[in-house]
Amino acid sequence: MYRLTILTQFAAAHNLINYQGDCENLHGHNWKVEVTVAAKQLDKAGLGIDFKILKRETNQVLDQLDHKYLNDLAPFKEVSPSSENIARFLFEELIRMFTTENVTVEKVTVWESEKACASYSLA
Amino acid sequence: MYRLTILTQFAAAHNLINYQGDCENLHGHNWKVEVTVAAKQLDKAGLGIDFKILKRETNQVLDQLDHKYLNDLAPFKEVSPSSENIARFLFEELIRMFTTENVTVEKVTVWESEKACASYSLA
Amino acid sequence: MYRLTILTQFAAAHNLINYQGDCENLHGHNWKVEVTVAAKQLDKAGLGIDFKILKRETNQVLDQLDHKYLNDLAPFKEVSPSSENIARFLFEELIRMFTTENVTVEKVTVWESEKACASYSLA
Amino acid sequence: MYRLTILTQFAAAHNLINYQGDCENLHGHNWKVEVTVAAKQLDKAGLGIDFKILKRETNQVLDQLDHKYLNDLAPFKEVSPSSENIARFLFEELIRMFTTENVTVEKVTVWESEKACASYSLA
Amino acid sequence: MYRLTILTQFAAAHNLINYQGDCENLHGHNWKVEVTVAAKQLDKAGLGIDFKILKRETNQVLDQLDHKYLNDLAPFKEVSPSSENIARFLFEELIRMFTTENVTVEKVTVWESEKACASYSLA
Amino acid sequence: MYRLTILTQFAAAHNLINYQGDCENLHGHNWKVEVTVAAKQLDKAGLGIDFKILKRETNQVLDQLDHKYLNDLAPFKEVSPSSENIARFLFEELIRMFTTENVTVEKVTVWESEKACASYSLA
Repeated sequence: MYRLTILTQFAAAHNLINYQGDCENLHGHNWKVEVTVAAKQLDKAGLGIDFKILKRETNQVLDQLDHKYLNDLAPFKEVSPSSENIARFLFEELIRMFTTENVTVEKVTVWESEKACASYSLA
Repeated sequence: MYRLTILTQFAAAHNLINYQGDCENLHGHNWKVEVTVAAKQLDKAGLGIDFKILKRETNQVLDQLDHKYLNDLAPFKEVSPSSENIARFLFEELIRMFTTENVTVEKVTVWESEKACASYSLA
Repeated sequence: MYRLTILTQFAAAHNLINYQGDCENLHGHNWKVEVTVAAKQLDKAGLGIDFKILKRETNQVLDQLDHKYLNDLAPFKEVSPSSENIARFLFEELIRMFTTENVTVEKVTVWESEKACASYSLA
Repeated sequence: MYRLTILTQFAAAHNLINYQGDCENLHGHNWKVEVTVAAKQLDKAGLGIDFKILKRETNQVLDQLDHKYLNDLAPFKEVSPSSENIARFLFEELIRMFTTENVTVEKVTVWESEKACASYSLA
Repeated sequence: MYRLTILTQFAAAHNLINYQGDCENLHGHNWKVEVTVAAKQLDKAGLGIDFKILKRETNQVLDQLDHKYLNDLAPFKEVSPSSENIARFLFEELIRMFTTENVTVEKVTVWESEKACASYSLA
Repeated sequence: MYRLTILTQFAAAHNLINYQGDCENLHGHNWKVEVTVAAKQLDKAGLGIDFKILKRETNQVLDQLDHKYLNDLAPFKEVSPSSENIARFLFEELIRMFTTENVTVEKVTVWESEKACASYSLA
């Protein structure tokens, strides 16, 4: 099996809800985002999926979050915008965009700092 | 499934036992430590486990190793303090601390340099 | 001349003022902070200044900014909280804390992403 | 299970074949290469496989590619030298070198930039 | 003085001329490029120069080199495309673009690997 | 002026002398070493000094320290093996090796962790 991973990022403000501690304060992060897809076969150029397409489409989804206050956005109106929930939101957006007979979105990982990340996957 | 990973580190001296080569000399490393836990569900703040708790508890275990000569410590009196054995030692300490109905410690990875790591996991 | 640099970080929300573009929206970053001091001489332990002290004192200053909305804070009430102005604010705080006959604060650098930083120094 | 990963790299020129876009132009990369092997048991020095051996043998394979024009080489005469195909080529070379009763080569990952990688594995 | 640095990159093929060793072979790199400008004063948004502009204009210059064979290009027809000469070429392009009464291009650094870089500056 | 920097590393054990705190315990680090030289002119291959030579010669000096207990070595018998003193020791070794009419060793920086470094230079 071939797997392809791209890294990209967005910068946003958020605050956790239903939480006690400094993360309940309005603050922000650069979130680094890793998207991993599996591809069974390669095309005649040797690609599972073109990195350019994987990056461009992922960045279109991230444009919804970038330079925004996450708690103001529809997906996080009633869901705490934790890194876990951001990873799940992105995973669900991306499986709709990239899933084909050949390609499966396997995992989305969201780093909220250099030292802490959350990922979401089906398995 | 949600997975959470934190990175932390400790600095120590060691030397491999039953080994021939420069690693049998007393030397040392900054070991970077990655701990990955899986969480089935999130709490109402959107967290699988609070990164703060995961870091604080892991660092308490690492305090046993940090700024020490590993071969002097109880877990490595008769076991060569290789990165493989350090990963296993930490894994076994951490499953006792973090395992709940919701949370499973999946993997502990120990980087002995920027270019080489060992991990331990049940699967 | 000896120079010592420590890296640390804080996470906060901000928005530029008097600016047109996506940075005028409320958003946030992990800012990585580099502090460089020069030391003419070393003490008998071989230190220009103890890294532990340099980190601890710098982090006390950063606690004013960490997990906050910068535009709400006194230093940025009337000054746009750009990375340039954050670097200058930190520089001015730190010269008051660290300057001695032996030690000079030379530069504070503030990375607002992995790809962009601003620094402030006297020279 | 113990897993060991080493990172190494090579620098080469290539161009994709059967592709339309800037990657069909002659250009080049530093490819960072990650090799992961699984080891069931450790030897008496606490090693699954000696990192030194894993690095040395991997680098011998990479010497075929380093400072070369990949499209000129036998493995890529009729196969587009994409990162996916490079990962598969390396995987197949390395399983012949490292597979024992105790050790299995699990995955080879090839980073063509800091932001994009392809891997090959059996599962 | 304020200083601003951006990091960007390009991928290209090259070979050194008048050189004996593996760098005389056609090969390639991802070159990471650091551009540092000094700014005496900030505008009312708190910026020395907008990072967006610094990145966009630098990337326009890099488009001349990205996904190309450097030895084929006009600036390297008779000059060996070493990292030193690439740094100087970029420096001379960028001083023409960014120099104002307030802003000075101080240094261009070109990393040909994670472990080796060359820079060019007037001082 | 052209400047060339290489990064390399060594792993060793040490303990500070005349110090109270956890650094007086026997422990160790991976020290990352940055060597910066300035070159006025380039040779006909476009090089200030060949990176290969700069790395090879620096690594020969580091072989004195790598996989050793620093306090046992001649340069640190009576000098505390702090990062500051390691940087100075390396600087003094390297100026003897690399100084020519064209090339000057400007700075040696020694990272004792990802977050703390000491450098030595004449200016």
